[in-house]
Amino acid sequence: MDKQAAKDRFIKEFDQLVKELQEILTNYKMPQEAIDWFTKSLDYNTPGGKLNRGLSVIDTYAILKGTTSDKLGDEEYKKAALLGWCIELLQAYFLVADDMMDASKTRRGQPCWYLVEGVGNIAINDSFMLEGAIYILLKKHFRQDKYYVDLLDLFHEVTFQTELGQLLDLVTADEEHVDLDKFSLEKHSFIVTFKTAYYSFYLPVALSMFMVGVSSEEDLKQARDILIPLGEYFQIQDDFLDCFGTPEQIGKIGTDIKDNKCSWVVNKALNKVNQAQRKLLDENYGKKDDESEQRVKDLFKELEIEKDYYQYEESIVSELKQKIDQVDESRGFKKEVLTSFLGKVYKRSK
Amino acid sequence: MDKQAAKDRFIKEFDQLVKELQEILTNYKMPQEAIDWFTKSLDYNTPGGKLNRGLSVIDTYAILKGTTSDKLGDEEYKKAALLGWCIELLQAYFLVADDMMDASKTRRGQPCWYLVEGVGNIAINDSFMLEGAIYILLKKHFRQDKYYVDLLDLFHEVTFQTELGQLLDLVTADEEHVDLDKFSLEKHSFIVTFKTAYYSFYLPVALSMFMVGVSSEEDLKQARDILIPLGEYFQIQDDFLDCFGTPEQIGKIGTDIKDNKCSWVVNKALNKVNQAQRKLLDENYGKKDDESEQRVKDLFKELEIEKDYYQYEESIVSELKQKIDQVDESRGFKKEVLTSFLGKVYKRSK
Ligand SMILES: [Mg+2]
Ligand SMILES: [Mg+2]
Ligand SMILES: [Mg+2]
Ligand SMILES: [Mg+2]
Ligand SMILES: [Mg+2]
Ligand SMILES: [Mg+2]
Repeated sequence: MDKQAAKDRFIKEFDQLVKELQEILTNYKMPQEAIDWFTKSLDYNTPGGKLNRGLSVIDTYAILKGTTSDKLGDEEYKKAALLGWCIELLQAYFLVADDMMDASKTRRGQPCWYLVEGVGNIAINDSFMLEGAIYILLKKHFRQDKYYVDLLDLFHEVTFQTELGQLLDLVTADEEHVDLDKFSLEKHSFIVTFKTAYYSFYLPVALSMFMVGVSSEEDLKQARDILIPLGEYFQIQDDFLDCFGTPEQIGKIGTDIKDNKCSWVVNKALNKVNQAQRKLLDENYGKKDDESEQRVKDLFKELEIEKDYYQYEESIVSELKQKIDQVDESRGFKKEVLTSFLGKVYKRSK
Repeated sequence: MDKQAAKDRFIKEFDQLVKELQEILTNYKMPQEAIDWFTKSLDYNTPGGKLNRGLSVIDTYAILKGTTSDKLGDEEYKKAALLGWCIELLQAYFLVADDMMDASKTRRGQPCWYLVEGVGNIAINDSFMLEGAIYILLKKHFRQDKYYVDLLDLFHEVTFQTELGQLLDLVTADEEHVDLDKFSLEKHSFIVTFKTAYYSFYLPVALSMFMVGVSSEEDLKQARDILIPLGEYFQIQDDFLDCFGTPEQIGKIGTDIKDNKCSWVVNKALNKVNQAQRKLLDENYGKKDDESEQRVKDLFKELEIEKDYYQYEESIVSELKQKIDQVDESRGFKKEVLTSFLGKVYKRSK
């Protein structure tokens, strides 16, 4: 099955899941206008992204079962897809709120949900309900499974970790009071690990592992020890491409410099600047005009951050490959899960 | 132990719980500024209310154990108190967000959290973390108990129900587009049941029941069948007092009329108005000036809504008493749990 077919099949499961949620509201005798509102929020905020996180639950499950996703039976496919959609719901919950906190204008090529006519701050409650839907669905489909409670613990833990990462990001990169003294590579590492790596890399794999039954603490740790640095690498790459990638490459125009983002690029630069260069950064980073942004970009070029990035990439990739090599497959966990993830990230910038 | 002593003991447990949460963040190597921020949010938003919901977990637990809360052993007291604080955290999560959605100015005599200097929309993530703290604490203290998964299911279910009630409230009583056609007593009943009754009345009792082990589906249903209408009565009383109570009685100045609230009082009035009175309501309800408010209040007097309220109260109280009388105590559930709740609500207006 090609990529698009896999995505189409996955999206069909979403339609089913929306029907199930509507049915639950109908059973509560919820008035139609509220059912319609919730449906619109689900449809607007949940699909529409790349769906990598959701799809990777199915792919990982298939690898652990020694097959490919197109050969999965209907029942197990549906269960794995449901877990995938739960990650997409979790992401929707975070993104609806993140856009409000960042005062963003668009998301995935359309206005942010809170900017849709008539929505406004109701979006806060909508984000709550996107998260709430996860647990309604998990209960309906997994309550009888012995690993049900593990799924709940995992979602709770990863949700809280992501919120912690978001908090640190918010208090570090305040758009109104730019202060580069607050930045550091250590803080960057913490933010991206918590805000991105846990839910985007560890969560899909751990969910599949529970479903397959390869979920001893040792195996979960093996997965985590590689997926968390891999997630950090993914975000560093994202930060790098935001600044050095072409719009064609990244499918959007990077705004990290104007947005005062605590990105890997600026942190790397801060470690190399002399006094005059630091002054230039202080005066131009986080400013909204194109000239300031260009001055910052020129400085990044001058500092050869690009070289640093390729050095970092070579070293992290070889480190990760080595670690994957050492993975113990004796309890059923498979290196292939990790090489597959690494392959997806590594080739993204090539 | 008198009421204040009970409250003081309960609040001591909160200090302990904040320390536990700080420790978890410290173990994550979270930078101090983020730990401080989370601590401030916990302290600002969680205690400070009447704590009735939290305290009633302990009281209910004691009744089901055939004792009083001051005679509980230290360990069981701490566990019951923790469940109580989890309800207070859930309420904090809802209130931080509700104040933003209602554009409220104050809460419990201080500025709303989102209006505190430097907070703003970060309050959205703070509300997420208040909810997140519930599951961190439940896992730490109840993971070994066989009813742990029941606690999680219960919190998830009640959280989603409350969010549903909030959604219906938001789409029904839009402050910017006053439209009394959207109101009805049926909708009022739905909103207050979902937005208030489940988490304020059913949740504390059900949590205690799980902890004591009196938690068959029949007994949970017995509790729910009385606590949900009791919660609705509580909210109708709240609506009534907002309009007809004196500031001394209710400890604040009622604002439901100016705020375009879908309150029991206006719904009762809508059922009785002639055309001219309806016109008066349409022109004055939800307006921000004192004169409009006074015109609405005068109409409510003219329509004798007060009389309707006392009639409603007599009939619901006698109905609830009858239902409580019929409660089956054979599996360990106790009528006293319910009479104690009813007593607290009934005497509030006397
Ligand atoms: Mg953002
Ligand atoms: Mg953000
Ligand atoms: Mg980026
Ligand atoms: Mg409010
Ligand atoms: Mg409200
Ligand atoms: Mg009120």
